[in-house]
Amino acid sequence: MRGRRLYPNDRVILRELGLRDGLQLVSRWPGTAAKTEWINRAAAAGVRHIEVGSFLPTERFPQFADIRTLVTAAAALPDIRASALTLNERAVDDALTTAVSEIVLVVSATEAHSRANMRRSRQSAVELVGYACSKRKDHETVERRYPTSDGAESGPVVCAAISVAFGCPFEGDVSTDTVLAAVDKCLEAGADVIAVADTIGVAAPRQVSDLCRALLPRLGATPLVVHLHDTRGTGIANAHGALEAGVRILDGTIGGLGGCPFAPGATGNVVFEDLVYLCERCGFPTGINLELLITIRSILERDMAGEPLFGALARAGIPKMLSWSASRLPEDRGARGKREAASGR
Amino acid sequence: MRGRRLYPNDRVILRELGLRDGLQLVSRWPGTAAKTEWINRAAAAGVRHIEVGSFLPTERFPQFADIRTLVTAAAALPDIRASALTLNERAVDDALTTAVSEIVLVVSATEAHSRANMRRSRQSAVELVGYACSKRKDHETVERRYPTSDGAESGPVVCAAISVAFGCPFEGDVSTDTVLAAVDKCLEAGADVIAVADTIGVAAPRQVSDLCRALLPRLGATPLVVHLHDTRGTGIANAHGALEAGVRILDGTIGGLGGCPFAPGATGNVVFEDLVYLCERCGFPTGINLELLITIRSILERDMAGEPLFGALARAGIPKMLSWSASRLPEDRGARGKREAASGR
Repeated sequence: MRGRRLYPNDRVILRELGLRDGLQLVSRWPGTAAKTEWINRAAAAGVRHIEVGSFLPTERFPQFADIRTLVTAAAALPDIRASALTLNERAVDDALTTAVSEIVLVVSATEAHSRANMRRSRQSAVELVGYACSKRKDHETVERRYPTSDGAESGPVVCAAISVAFGCPFEGDVSTDTVLAAVDKCLEAGADVIAVADTIGVAAPRQVSDLCRALLPRLGATPLVVHLHDTRGTGIANAHGALEAGVRILDGTIGGLGGCPFAPGATGNVVFEDLVYLCERCGFPTGINLELLITIRSILERDMAGEPLFGALARAGIPKMLSWSASRLPEDRGARGKREAASGR
Repeated sequence: MRGRRLYPNDRVILRELGLRDGLQLVSRWPGTAAKTEWINRAAAAGVRHIEVGSFLPTERFPQFADIRTLVTAAAALPDIRASALTLNERAVDDALTTAVSEIVLVVSATEAHSRANMRRSRQSAVELVGYACSKRKDHETVERRYPTSDGAESGPVVCAAISVAFGCPFEGDVSTDTVLAAVDKCLEAGADVIAVADTIGVAAPRQVSDLCRALLPRLGATPLVVHLHDTRGTGIANAHGALEAGVRILDGTIGGLGGCPFAPGATGNVVFEDLVYLCERCGFPTGINLELLITIRSILERDMAGEPLFGALARAGIPKMLSWSASRLPEDRGARGKREAASGR
């Protein structure tokens, strides 16, 4: 499966989304040099999957105007998979002219949220997934970072993210069947990776594990990502619910950056550092060095003054009794030597 | 069993410990009138188990000098169980002259922590539990709030709290066998309730559920409390691990008040409000009205300025899609009508 090129299923993979999901609603953001430093530090800490921005109209979203530069910067680093969000056909076309490893598209679980958030019906959002999947084959001029011998496998991976999968601000509860139907349509449209997102942060741990247990066998070799917000303090508990169900790919942002338009003042995404700690503490090596990782917070403190930064690990310190440097990915990973050299351990 | 008098096992019971565990390390604290208001508001919100302070030398711990007044104030409220911490024989004697419903004693899981924290051996701490259990029968002059027809059942409940049960700052990992041994000794000494405490906030969710699954059958009808700190962001996840294992009694403090001497700047206890939310969201009615509960934070903001207050619920607001007022305890609870009248719902 194409999705497994980017997401081997023998380890936990944590995706840092701060440069995209963390900057969607802010009034101040780091400049391109600081964003590049962010990517470099994340890479040095051992993060391998980074969402570097969105392909959005620069007049409305100036914080993402440097998306091409960031994709290029990330693509120049060894082993980094750079992803970017696209919300319409033009954005998909733009993304396909870059070295991006993964294109993320959003399909709402509910019709009301789809129309409010994307001004599209769910069906139209699914068609956009199909558009991205068909178009990527036409864009062979850009050198891909993960070429395969099979021509049909070239082009970036397409990830369909099912938003409001655990609750909708307009329609309330969202049933498992509703999510499964949306997932099925995205798979039919050709999506390589499926994400389920607790967009407004209302999920409960058992709800997360139940939905994931329903999804995983259905998805087979297609990777499943769980994207959680910590709006009401259950983000880490929900992440644990996902791990318990067998999910091995989770999203977060440094400092929990990223608000929710429906919950002013709320924490945004799950705090990435705390997610690393949870996984390591639960026996899932992440390959991420926490001491190096939390240095990224100083960029945010400097360039996004006033933006609240969350995170228990950064506050409490890394416990001495846990030897983080001992965290290792499975021995059979070919790129291990190179990665460790890159992370400076 | 004596412990079940205070802890019926047909519901989740959340204990608010802010007036004790939350005030141990602070330099400013609310006055007696404000503390009484705290207790009144908690009671009005539906909280039934409140730890109101410690019997400690007032010269060293002036924040607890009003413990007798607070026990009396709490005892005057319908359905409130007031508990207090005691760390030596004199404190036990003092507590037994009040209307306190529960006396809490600490037994460290490790010898090093016991000597550092209490300047007692573990054996000596266990003997203190025995002392409390034997002495309570001698104190029949104080009117108990929960008299029984059986004279042997009079006197307050004795809770033995096993500290550093999930990790020790001196000895590192703490094995299940170590905790079980400490619990057995406390039961032999006559403890009515057992608590296990993640004193330094290093527990992981699976570790919590594993330990609880080992403890619950061993304890039989003796109630088990899980006391968690949120030092590294896993507090709510750990609480969920306890719930999943069958634990129905959990501790927390309003605003996560209460630091840890071994982790400066860290969050203290699990945030009580967020714990209420977790339980309600997971289908465990708490009988607690969140809107009323979070009004207690204004007392802390006013009288403990500078003390960091944590809590996602207070920040994000109570989600409209969850109808908190619909939260109900089991129908068979006799005191229900009275409780609802007291909580103003």
